[in-house]
Amino acid sequence: MRIPTAGEILNGNRTALARAITLVESTRSDHALAAIALIEELLPHTGSSKRIGISGTPGVGKSTFIEALGGHLTSRGERVAVLAIDPSSQRTGGSILGDRTRMTSLSRDPNAFIRSTPSSGILGGVGAQTFATRLLCEAAGYTVVLIETVGVGQSETTVGDLTDLFLLLVAPSGGDDLQGIKRGVMEMADLIAINKADGDNIKPATVTQNDYRAALSLVRPKWPQQPTEVVLCSALEDQGVTEVWQSIEQLWTGLDATGSLAALRREQSAQSFRQHVTAGMLDLVMRFGEGQQEFIDVHAIEADVRDQRRSAIGAARRVVDAFADRL
Amino acid sequence: MRIPTAGEILNGNRTALARAITLVESTRSDHALAAIALIEELLPHTGSSKRIGISGTPGVGKSTFIEALGGHLTSRGERVAVLAIDPSSQRTGGSILGDRTRMTSLSRDPNAFIRSTPSSGILGGVGAQTFATRLLCEAAGYTVVLIETVGVGQSETTVGDLTDLFLLLVAPSGGDDLQGIKRGVMEMADLIAINKADGDNIKPATVTQNDYRAALSLVRPKWPQQPTEVVLCSALEDQGVTEVWQSIEQLWTGLDATGSLAALRREQSAQSFRQHVTAGMLDLVMRFGEGQQEFIDVHAIEADVRDQRRSAIGAARRVVDAFADRL
Repeated sequence: MRIPTAGEILNGNRTALARAITLVESTRSDHALAAIALIEELLPHTGSSKRIGISGTPGVGKSTFIEALGGHLTSRGERVAVLAIDPSSQRTGGSILGDRTRMTSLSRDPNAFIRSTPSSGILGGVGAQTFATRLLCEAAGYTVVLIETVGVGQSETTVGDLTDLFLLLVAPSGGDDLQGIKRGVMEMADLIAINKADGDNIKPATVTQNDYRAALSLVRPKWPQQPTEVVLCSALEDQGVTEVWQSIEQLWTGLDATGSLAALRREQSAQSFRQHVTAGMLDLVMRFGEGQQEFIDVHAIEADVRDQRRSAIGAARRVVDAFADRL
Repeated sequence: MRIPTAGEILNGNRTALARAITLVESTRSDHALAAIALIEELLPHTGSSKRIGISGTPGVGKSTFIEALGGHLTSRGERVAVLAIDPSSQRTGGSILGDRTRMTSLSRDPNAFIRSTPSSGILGGVGAQTFATRLLCEAAGYTVVLIETVGVGQSETTVGDLTDLFLLLVAPSGGDDLQGIKRGVMEMADLIAINKADGDNIKPATVTQNDYRAALSLVRPKWPQQPTEVVLCSALEDQGVTEVWQSIEQLWTGLDATGSLAALRREQSAQSFRQHVTAGMLDLVMRFGEGQQEFIDVHAIEADVRDQRRSAIGAARRVVDAFADRL
């Protein structure tokens, strides 16, 4: 693979951007070094995009929503990057339907860039990888970065750690599934949109809207000064999507004005740093037992753990203590 | 908190078990040491339970299913531990409806033990914590450990790393939501059960069953020698639940006989070891900058990352390299 230059990324060369992301995701150590050099060079040219997380359970219409929203944004001059985090693709790398099938018109839009991150766990895990990918997209001139995730749970927390604002998409229902929505996910949402509010679904969508408003009153508000809004939209009929974006922009501008945005991003950078340190240190530790003159044979200890001669937790403590003693 | 003894756990003392789990989840370092000592002592008394992961999106009827299955199991003499992993509870610790509300009869059953694990990220993350909790439950005499999770994605991978077999619950649908099911999750499933196959739902359940069978033919089979079964059940009407368990038992016995189970568990122990090492090493690294005579000031570097003077990835690399040079 030819290593892309910072200049190519800054010029908005899509092939170079795609290559740089592949570099970030690579498991080769020379690639990791090249990725780091590139990111360090590009760092001063990043930070200007709006970073929005979008989540919702399967079937809620996320792809249709992002397709509609992305089209609106590019038509008014924004450049939109869509980064999909697919935690379940860990084993085989990808959902059954690929991105191009999911977002046909956005994937052909010259001002949009769509990319899935396999959660390979290399280089600090999916969060750290997406953090680096987002930097690259910003350097390439993308003004809006949408980070999409599937499911309810851990991946939402990851996305919350990567974005300025978090939009939760919900499908209309008879009002019987609120128990499936976790308090933590609701607390993370800056805005909740009930999608598919069209035709016969308008009534159940309104019921769901009220259910969520009621449920939000039970959880700790994300922003003490203002309650989280719950709005209706239909991405399929392109109803309310621009209004959702207006609400997001308004929140974003408010966060930016008060300095909350800068504070949030500082914390996120620190978080990403720790993820990278974690991955690097594990790698460092596991190399002991392969080389010469080691003070501890990590592989022999791991073999004891496999054979139930030591507990995982106790053996790990011994290893960490041995490293601590050496320093 | 009084530290429970190994004897109390082995005698099946529920209060002691609950306390031991709290110890494992604690963030205090003296608690961590006590937890490790306890687990090391109990290790020889573990390993005899069937460890089954159960997952499915919200609304699929997981609680009702586990309640029905748990009741069957305890009525035939099994002792059942239900460990719920709730990744979204990271911020506030718990879903809106608690376990006791969810599983009213099982929570009163003297031969059942229900516990939620908040994913606090301490002591190696939710996977490592649940690994330790499962050990404690086995030492306390539980013969079946059901590890339940919510959502589709990363938490499934975690549960797959903790259990012998993985049951995916699915709700009947018009057959239009298969795109929401990720290839990775399907590949992980040892058995797929379409729940709620009762009354008017029987027809859509059969459609869904066929859809999943078709979809499974597109993914890599979990066990090359036999295709993953897709069965119907109704936990609400208690139809097919015992049959689901029979299928699971049959698979389990087969895995045990061929040695695949032992091999899987060895890998899982190694995985848990690495998670604990990871958490411990991050903790070790982050302590540099607080003490005296450090060779590197990690906190100053982290401050640079916060202020965008260094990239997270580059700064982390520098830290890891500095530690590597010292060893």
